[in-house]
Amino acid sequence: MRNIKLIIEYDGSRYRGWQRLKNSEETIQGKLESVISKMVDSPIEIIGSGRTDAGVHARGQVANFHTKSTMSIKEIHKYINHYLPQDIIVKEVKEVSERFHSRYNVKNKKYVCYVWNHWVPSVFQRKYSHHIADKLDIGLMEEAAKKLVGTHDFIGFSSVKKTNKSTTRTIEEITIEKEGNMLKFTFVGDGFLYNMVRIIMGSLVEVGLRRKKISYIDEILESKTRSMAGQTFPPEGLFLEEVNY
Amino acid sequence: MRNIKLIIEYDGSRYRGWQRLKNSEETIQGKLESVISKMVDSPIEIIGSGRTDAGVHARGQVANFHTKSTMSIKEIHKYINHYLPQDIIVKEVKEVSERFHSRYNVKNKKYVCYVWNHWVPSVFQRKYSHHIADKLDIGLMEEAAKKLVGTHDFIGFSSVKKTNKSTTRTIEEITIEKEGNMLKFTFVGDGFLYNMVRIIMGSLVEVGLRRKKISYIDEILESKTRSMAGQTFPPEGLFLEEVNY
Repeated sequence: MRNIKLIIEYDGSRYRGWQRLKNSEETIQGKLESVISKMVDSPIEIIGSGRTDAGVHARGQVANFHTKSTMSIKEIHKYINHYLPQDIIVKEVKEVSERFHSRYNVKNKKYVCYVWNHWVPSVFQRKYSHHIADKLDIGLMEEAAKKLVGTHDFIGFSSVKKTNKSTTRTIEEITIEKEGNMLKFTFVGDGFLYNMVRIIMGSLVEVGLRRKKISYIDEILESKTRSMAGQTFPPEGLFLEEVNY
Repeated sequence: MRNIKLIIEYDGSRYRGWQRLKNSEETIQGKLESVISKMVDSPIEIIGSGRTDAGVHARGQVANFHTKSTMSIKEIHKYINHYLPQDIIVKEVKEVSERFHSRYNVKNKKYVCYVWNHWVPSVFQRKYSHHIADKLDIGLMEEAAKKLVGTHDFIGFSSVKKTNKSTTRTIEEITIEKEGNMLKFTFVGDGFLYNMVRIIMGSLVEVGLRRKKISYIDEILESKTRSMAGQTFPPEGLFLEEVNY
């Protein structure tokens, strides 16, 4: 069996997230599976690097699928993009070793989250950033972010229900850049729990707006309690930027 | 009478251009006039720096209107943005001298045009750039663009019908920058005839695709004949970036 790796870009605005649901038209995975299954004329299951929530975008989601098809890589690439809707694009197609697995082999992932921080919103960034009118203190948020870098039990920053699986993850890097009115938050880590980036964002913003002190982050980490943390940040500013293997 | 200057940003995708038509809901000017007239409770006519075509965007369109209203600038700004649709935003409001006129006083304008130049389209740039799959030769286009800089009769590069008005304009600068797969064309000039930027773009692309030689530009300038020039470029990649006074 051939093993085909895809790098996928999507505008998540009108989807219910990555993971296939009964109605395949509403998810990215569903859309891809329906196009690829038609292409190879047999039902195909694609393996994604992980889920993205409803409304979250991706510039570098990775998935793979197995097939006996003899189509060339270029033919596969053209076929898929021809039949995908305009808000999903396969950027790269590559044949990989049979053992490659998009989820199990992840080394790290990079998420980026955009905040438009000015009282006048932006027309062009509206669908791709979250608008916060009140001025955020970047220095305070950077200090707070430092407390999250490293290996921690992030259960307090997640919507994970009771689980036997480990909720310890390592965040390698968090950076905050400002360009004009746009703030760009970058998160690199070996894995992120359900809603983890969005709950971290919501908590950092509490600090940036001076509603909470920097020690708030320690309190959430120590308490391991979701209800301590900030709100789950809206999805429209969040992008799965890269998945590295 | 107070004279109020506005700097306006809009996503032109769903409008029939700047200029008011009978159905005010379909144009940017119409939308603004209906909000501002309601605000001051009398019919207001706003003067724009010039028209933009259907589908063309703006980051820095300028307009002004006269009013006896005693509202503060901040109140005006908040009111207008509150009632405008999400694809039109007033970025700045300023009270200016009574003699300021958005069209007559223009010193120069800057237009920017984006081309996504890769066979795989971009999901996020789709509405804000024109997609050209075949590789464009930037060096050739830069050479061709040089021939347009300066003072020329640009009638061959416009959709202007027979006219007694001058069709001579001065282009101060044309630059082409590449960032990844995106090409950014910048045009600065004292004025642009109807469709002029789009017809120049269509003609430069003919050169960039090696369908025409650089001398093609001279031929259009000399012939002063619209039919010699390239196609009118699609509007979705074009932005009115700045109007300077």
